[in-house]
Amino acid sequence: MTPGPVDVPSEALLEMARPIFHHRTAKFRELLEETTGLLKQVFRTKSDIVTFTSSGTGAMEASIVNILRKDEKALFVSGGKFGERWGNIAKAFGIETVEIKMPYGNAVDPEDIRKALDADPKIKAVYTTLCETSTGVVHDIRAIGKIVKDTDVLLVVDGISSVGAVEIETDEWGVDMLVVGSQKALMIPPGLAFLTVNDKAWAKVEQVSAPAFYLSLKAARKSMAKSDTPYTPAITLIAGLKQSLDMIVTEGVENVWKRHAKLADATRAGVKALGLELFAESPSNSVTAVKVPEGVDGAKIPSKMAEDHGIRIAGGQADMKGKIFRIGHMGYVDKIDVIGVLAALEMTLADLGHKFDVGASLRAAQDIFLAG
Amino acid sequence: MTPGPVDVPSEALLEMARPIFHHRTAKFRELLEETTGLLKQVFRTKSDIVTFTSSGTGAMEASIVNILRKDEKALFVSGGKFGERWGNIAKAFGIETVEIKMPYGNAVDPEDIRKALDADPKIKAVYTTLCETSTGVVHDIRAIGKIVKDTDVLLVVDGISSVGAVEIETDEWGVDMLVVGSQKALMIPPGLAFLTVNDKAWAKVEQVSAPAFYLSLKAARKSMAKSDTPYTPAITLIAGLKQSLDMIVTEGVENVWKRHAKLADATRAGVKALGLELFAESPSNSVTAVKVPEGVDGAKIPSKMAEDHGIRIAGGQADMKGKIFRIGHMGYVDKIDVIGVLAALEMTLADLGHKFDVGASLRAAQDIFLAG
Repeated sequence: MTPGPVDVPSEALLEMARPIFHHRTAKFRELLEETTGLLKQVFRTKSDIVTFTSSGTGAMEASIVNILRKDEKALFVSGGKFGERWGNIAKAFGIETVEIKMPYGNAVDPEDIRKALDADPKIKAVYTTLCETSTGVVHDIRAIGKIVKDTDVLLVVDGISSVGAVEIETDEWGVDMLVVGSQKALMIPPGLAFLTVNDKAWAKVEQVSAPAFYLSLKAARKSMAKSDTPYTPAITLIAGLKQSLDMIVTEGVENVWKRHAKLADATRAGVKALGLELFAESPSNSVTAVKVPEGVDGAKIPSKMAEDHGIRIAGGQADMKGKIFRIGHMGYVDKIDVIGVLAALEMTLADLGHKFDVGASLRAAQDIFLAG
Repeated sequence: MTPGPVDVPSEALLEMARPIFHHRTAKFRELLEETTGLLKQVFRTKSDIVTFTSSGTGAMEASIVNILRKDEKALFVSGGKFGERWGNIAKAFGIETVEIKMPYGNAVDPEDIRKALDADPKIKAVYTTLCETSTGVVHDIRAIGKIVKDTDVLLVVDGISSVGAVEIETDEWGVDMLVVGSQKALMIPPGLAFLTVNDKAWAKVEQVSAPAFYLSLKAARKSMAKSDTPYTPAITLIAGLKQSLDMIVTEGVENVWKRHAKLADATRAGVKALGLELFAESPSNSVTAVKVPEGVDGAKIPSKMAEDHGIRIAGGQADMKGKIFRIGHMGYVDKIDVIGVLAALEMTLADLGHKFDVGASLRAAQDIFLAG
């Protein structure tokens, strides 16, 4: 129950244990075409999708170096470890950045993006997250899309810890590039990253002489035309992905979003019933960040819960260490998993000296589930 | 029986099908430490080893962008698709190159490297392959190492399709950086790449402001100090790797080299007994490249063999298409596999009109095996 890597269904695990096959074959090309088609359904796009053998950070880097020249600027929304990563990547490649610095836990005001774009015509791409994993905040991408859509600026969204769990309408909302990772709501192990590229983004790719080889989008485009990848892909992970995507599409993408909304509602109601406060002002349906209550040693919560109850949640990262904990509820997760994590949380908090009505979070979560 | 991806032992496949676990845990750190220790035994080095979630090309890129400044030059040995890739990567990042262009099928004369280094003091790194997969040539890295060792130049070797099959003494021979991939003689699926970095190479890394983020060696070094990776690693592939490395170390690294030498000997004797010629002047023990005989449609050999006999070998790449075919014999391969591929080759060649004494290659291979 961390915000990723998440549990992988046995169907996908066993698919990955089947004998390896070669990637320069019709069998692989067919597999890649099928998974790309399924990804398009989940990502809600008709655009191309590039599959990288890398962590999500690899695809983030690709979405910067392939579309910005050195005389252009990147606008990025920080306010969390992954928002900040956008800025760090751009700086590593000598690309100037403009930062909209949000207090941790807050969502960006889309109007601040409009103001920043108006103030600096050198900004040619906006980088933000759908869900900031480190704080549990979900940003209003629909509203941001409306602002960016009719400009020559590209909108690039990190959907790594949210797509497949949280509503996204890539094409309708005007997201030009969407980054997704394999080990989150797509329910397979880490090792693959995906990047959608629409026509507006491809036009920019073709204009830029990118400092990129392994992560070159021009190379990816050339191979995609033959349903191929430029370099040897992580074949087994793609085979597993096909299985997990089949499961998502069979359940129905909207139904999956609804399930996550319900699980998130129940988690939030549960922790509030224990007298705890949510950290995010607009909480994501993929992960719930909770403030550590007064008098409790926050750094101990995840380790003690893992040791005593065999359930792993995440603590805060960097500055947030000991101040928040984070419960992931995305991917292969159901109601009883949420009840389980809340029970483990109650017993852990009780042992660490927090006072509350034992069972309160379980009742609150069940009330949400019973309301249907 | 291609030169990779190769068969994965069931022990490793099933290890990868076990439930996923989180990477920011003692369990993962222990796994990474253990696999790194085993890799050091196989790569014959005491230096650091960085594990990337990428294809081998990602680690090749890392070994260029992290150690060369824009005012320095890379010397590379071409003479095959993968040798040429060194040059293509350097060029993508604006690094000037000096090429030692070998005819396909020939090995580099180490003295040519000495001459090139003497002629141009701006060359600060030499890039070559241990085995050039596209031609089956093995280069004399020991001799090249002697030339480069006492200079301020770094020696970087692509061992992707050979390390674990072909003798390499990374430290003793003076290889400063060695690139290895997971899907070849290490017997796991594609998705991981490894890069050894010795003190001489680290010193250069620390001096260079690299255009790198996902493939940054400085970031990797910082995380390695905590037995960690900077970005989410391909956990399941590393778990599988631990199994396959255990198998290699149990057999004994030198024994594994000897097994590959024997299998390669038998393959070469087999194809010669059919009146065929080897393509490589110094053939690798990991892959045997064979000239297509007169009057046979070379492009048909691999596809027909796969269709009729269920055994997949590789054709020639790019300019070599239809002119050579390549039999991989690395990793999870034994004597009977070699007999099998030779039998399939005989039947395929017979059907395509080549004249030879049926059974000749099988007898020749068995003679080699019986000689012990």
